[in-house]
Parts: sequence; C-alpha cells; structure tokens
Amino acid sequence: MSVYPIILSQTKFTHRDKLRYPFEERGLQFGDGVYEVIRIYKGSYYLLHEHVNRLFRSAEAIKLVLPFSKEEITNLLLDLLQRNDMTADGKVYLQSTRGSAPREHTFPEDVEANVYAYVQDLPRNHKNLENGVNVITRHDSRWDYCYIKSLNLLPNVLAKQEAKENGCFEAIFHKDGLVTECSSSNAYLVKDGKIYTHPASSSILHGCVRMRVEQFASDLSLPFIENGFSLDDIKDADEMFLSSSTAEVTPIVSVDGAKVGNGTPGKHTRKLQEAYEKDANIIKHTV
Amino acid sequence: MSVYPIILSQTKFTHRDKLRYPFEERGLQFGDGVYEVIRIYKGSYYLLHEHVNRLFRSAEAIKLVLPFSKEEITNLLLDLLQRNDMTADGKVYLQSTRGSAPREHTFPEDVEANVYAYVQDLPRNHKNLENGVNVITRHDSRWDYCYIKSLNLLPNVLAKQEAKENGCFEAIFHKDGLVTECSSSNAYLVKDGKIYTHPASSSILHGCVRMRVEQFASDLSLPFIENGFSLDDIKDADEMFLSSSTAEVTPIVSVDGAKVGNGTPGKHTRKLQEAYEKDANIIKHTV
Repeated sequence: MSVYPIILSQTKFTHRDKLRYPFEERGLQFGDGVYEVIRIYKGSYYLLHEHVNRLFRSAEAIKLVLPFSKEEITNLLLDLLQRNDMTADGKVYLQSTRGSAPREHTFPEDVEANVYAYVQDLPRNHKNLENGVNVITRHDSRWDYCYIKSLNLLPNVLAKQEAKENGCFEAIFHKDGLVTECSSSNAYLVKDGKIYTHPASSSILHGCVRMRVEQFASDLSLPFIENGFSLDDIKDADEMFLSSSTAEVTPIVSVDGAKVGNGTPGKHTRKLQEAYEKDANIIKHTV
Repeated sequence: MSVYPIILSQTKFTHRDKLRYPFEERGLQFGDGVYEVIRIYKGSYYLLHEHVNRLFRSAEAIKLVLPFSKEEITNLLLDLLQRNDMTADGKVYLQSTRGSAPREHTFPEDVEANVYAYVQDLPRNHKNLENGVNVITRHDSRWDYCYIKSLNLLPNVLAKQEAKENGCFEAIFHKDGLVTECSSSNAYLVKDGKIYTHPASSSILHGCVRMRVEQFASDLSLPFIENGFSLDDIKDADEMFLSSSTAEVTPIVSVDGAKVGNGTPGKHTRKLQEAYEKDANIIKHTV
C-alpha cells in the first residue's frame, strides 16, 4: 500500500503532514459539512461526475457554499491523482465543512468553507465479492434527511462497530421492520427474479452505485422495484446484496445468522457484479 | 471580552494557538464524540458536577472511553480557570472525540480519545432575560438518541440558523405537533400555574438547568408535568420559557409571530428566574 503525500486543501495542493485544523472548526464541533468517497480503478475515477453532482446537492441541502464550481473541483480531483502518480485501485475522500470560526450554532459570516481531499489505495475485496458477507439488523435511529451525505455519522459508526463485533461486514438498518439501507451501503433483496430496494426518498443515501445498479437491472430486464422490503421478506428472499463505492456489488449470504436463500451468492447478484465490472471497465483484471 | 490563552488538551495545558488537529480526526470526519458547555459566574462553575456526570453518560452511550476519571476532569476544569485568571461570567466548552486515526467507520484500536476544553467570556443576556425572546417552530428531524450530547449537531445548526434568519432567538422542535425541545435549549409551557415539558426520554437532552428548573418548581409548589405539550397547546398558553446553560431561564414571548399569553414574560417564569439567580448565587449582581 502506497502513501500518497499530496493532499488537496481548499483549491491548492500541499503535503499531507502540513494540513491541520484549529479546534474551532465547524466539522469538528458540529459535523457541519458534507463529503464524498470516490472509487478509483487503475488510477481512473469511476462515476466522478455523479459524485461531484451529489456533493453539490448535499451542500445545497445544508446551505453550504462550496468554494469552487463543479468543473473546478473535477479538475482539481483529476490533478490530485496526477500529482500523486496514482495508478492503482483506490479511493479519494473529499469533505467540505462550513469553515473555521468561533463556536456558534448559527452560520459564521464571511468565512470560507474548508475543503480537503486525499487519495488512498483500496484493493478490491475479492473475498467478499466472491463469497458474500454476513450482516446484522439494527433499528434505524438516524435523522430524517439521510439523502444528505453529511458528516453526522455517529449512528452509522455505532452500527458498523456492532456489525464488526458480531463478526459481520455490515448492519442493515430498518424502521419498524422496513429496511432502509445499510450503515454505509444500499441494500437489496431478490425474489422471483425481481430486485427490491427502498425508494430513493429522503430516508436513504442515493448511492451513485445504486443508480448504476438500477441501470444494470434495466439492461438485464430485471424488474427494479422501489417499494422497499421488510425483515419478514428476508426470510423468503432468494438473494440479497449491498452496494457502495467501496464495496461495489457485494452478495449478502446471511442476516442475523440466518442464511439468505441457500446461503451462497445468487445468480442475479452475479449478473449485476459482472455488469458492474464491465461498467467500471475492470472486467479484464478481475481475479 | 478577554481572550483566555490557556487551553486544556488531553490532560495537559497548552497555548490555544498550538492546538491543531490532523484531518483524519473522528470528530472532524464522523462527529464521533461528545461535549459539554458549562456556565461560569464570576469565575466559578455552576452545576459542574452535573455536567461532568452527563459527559460520562454521553460517552458511555457511544462507547467512548474517556481518558480521565470524573475527579480528574473536575480538577482539570477547575485548574483551567485558575491558569487563565478567569473571574468573569463565562463558559467552558469541553469536547472529547474517539481520537485521530485513519478513516474507518469502526472504532480505531489502541487510539486515545481526543479531549480539549477552553474558556470564554459570556456576559448574561440581560435584554433577553428581561424582555423574553421570539421563537419559530420546526419539524424535529433529529435522530432517536438526543439525550446523548453528541457532536452530530447539523439539524440543530440548521434550525438555529433559520431562527436567526426569521429574527428569532430559537427554534422549537416538534414531532407531529408534539414539542420536544429547542435547538439548543429545553422548552416549557405554563398553563393555570402548572409547568409542562417533554419527558426526559431519549428524545431530548436532559438539561442540567432543566433538572434545576424541576427543583425550583417543586420549591415553589408549581406542578412540573412531564407529559409534553403540543403546538395547539401553545395557542392557549399563559406563559412559555426555555432553559439552557447559556440562556438560563429565558421567557418566550412569541411563537411563529403569535404572542404567547399577553406577549410579555409571565409571573411564574419570573419566579423561576429568581430561583435560578439564587441557586447560581448571582442574585446580587443582577441588573
């Protein structure tokens, strides 16, 4: 794993060791900001424009004025990879907060948003992609506007930690039995050749990979039904899977210790994984 | 207003300009931490033990291991005032996050929590205390565990900003018409000599001043009824007020532009303000 020393700070580049923030920073004291995680394959971004568009939607939703245009941040993110000679599989983490200012709940005036972005290696998780993962279920305690990719991630952190402590990869959130999504990915159920998932309402993140999965399903003539599904539905599911920019399309093979279907990745999930690899132009270097 | 140069960082003291955080910090990336704001009158803490106890309850709720005992942090906070020769009315802001670590949702291992605390002047807001404040109402979009004083404060920030933009001091949150609390204070309604407020459930912060208000009500033989109240109830209210460590007991004189009662601070609110001043030992230097 390489360390990539150049980091984007505001609209300039600096060494990662030089970027430090004062203790009165809106992200640090309020989680008052938004972020994106963008996948990289062989040094190229996947779904870059989709992520940049979502960043602007999230920022607008919290009335955060980003200090760049979509075109500017796109070029800066491309430059970031070049300056780091990044040619591997990886990801960029990008966040923007409402800036550094004396602590008051109300927005600071005449303060520029803080922005940074950095690159990391992230090999594809072939084991999970091949064998599938185990998940737990947890009550969805989050706020009402989960479509905003904000830095208020405490419920996600707590659920993911509980998953880990239970030997699982993820936690599936549900509200009164209705599945919303996972702690850091979208969740899907397959039954009789149809794909079920929560509608892209304000209650879930509108995943960039989720958008692609909808397209893949269409290409494969698999009905994509945004009516959601319940914990009870899981008992009769043929297949389940999750998607995110880091986890791609990963099969779910057990929920709370009970097998999904026959306990192995399903055939429709496999087709969607193939479609993903083709779409991300990585089909040729898959193990 | 003085600037107090000495800041508590972990369990040591340093100059406030020297405390900076790396960009991979759990507070900055996840809001993964808890905090307290403690009132100071004439250089002495008010309700210090109550705040320290609540900090530990919040930390336990998010499984955060604080790097000190209650006695140690109490002594450090007292030392902080002494080292800054703090003798004015003010407040201390104290926060603890799950530390600095490479970004993963799951808890970092072998990483110590980050802690800092700093002092600021905060004169009493005699205008608000005397005349009362205007508030707006907003849907309570927050997560289910608002009793945890966490750094996930984006909904509070957005509501407080909307209040400001509407010329108001606070936003009253409600869920389906039932009032929970304000964006950074507890809310109360007075009707026929009885005080109504939301129960101290997981849906609201258990304010340290709220605990005292309950005691003041008991001392004054005013029934303190924790059944909550609705937006409809506000139309027939005799009085309303809010409480917090920075706002003390502040009368609410209008809600969404409509007068509360006769539009001036009520007599029971006045009695509670007097009880507060006596309890905080500030009755003699009130304007």
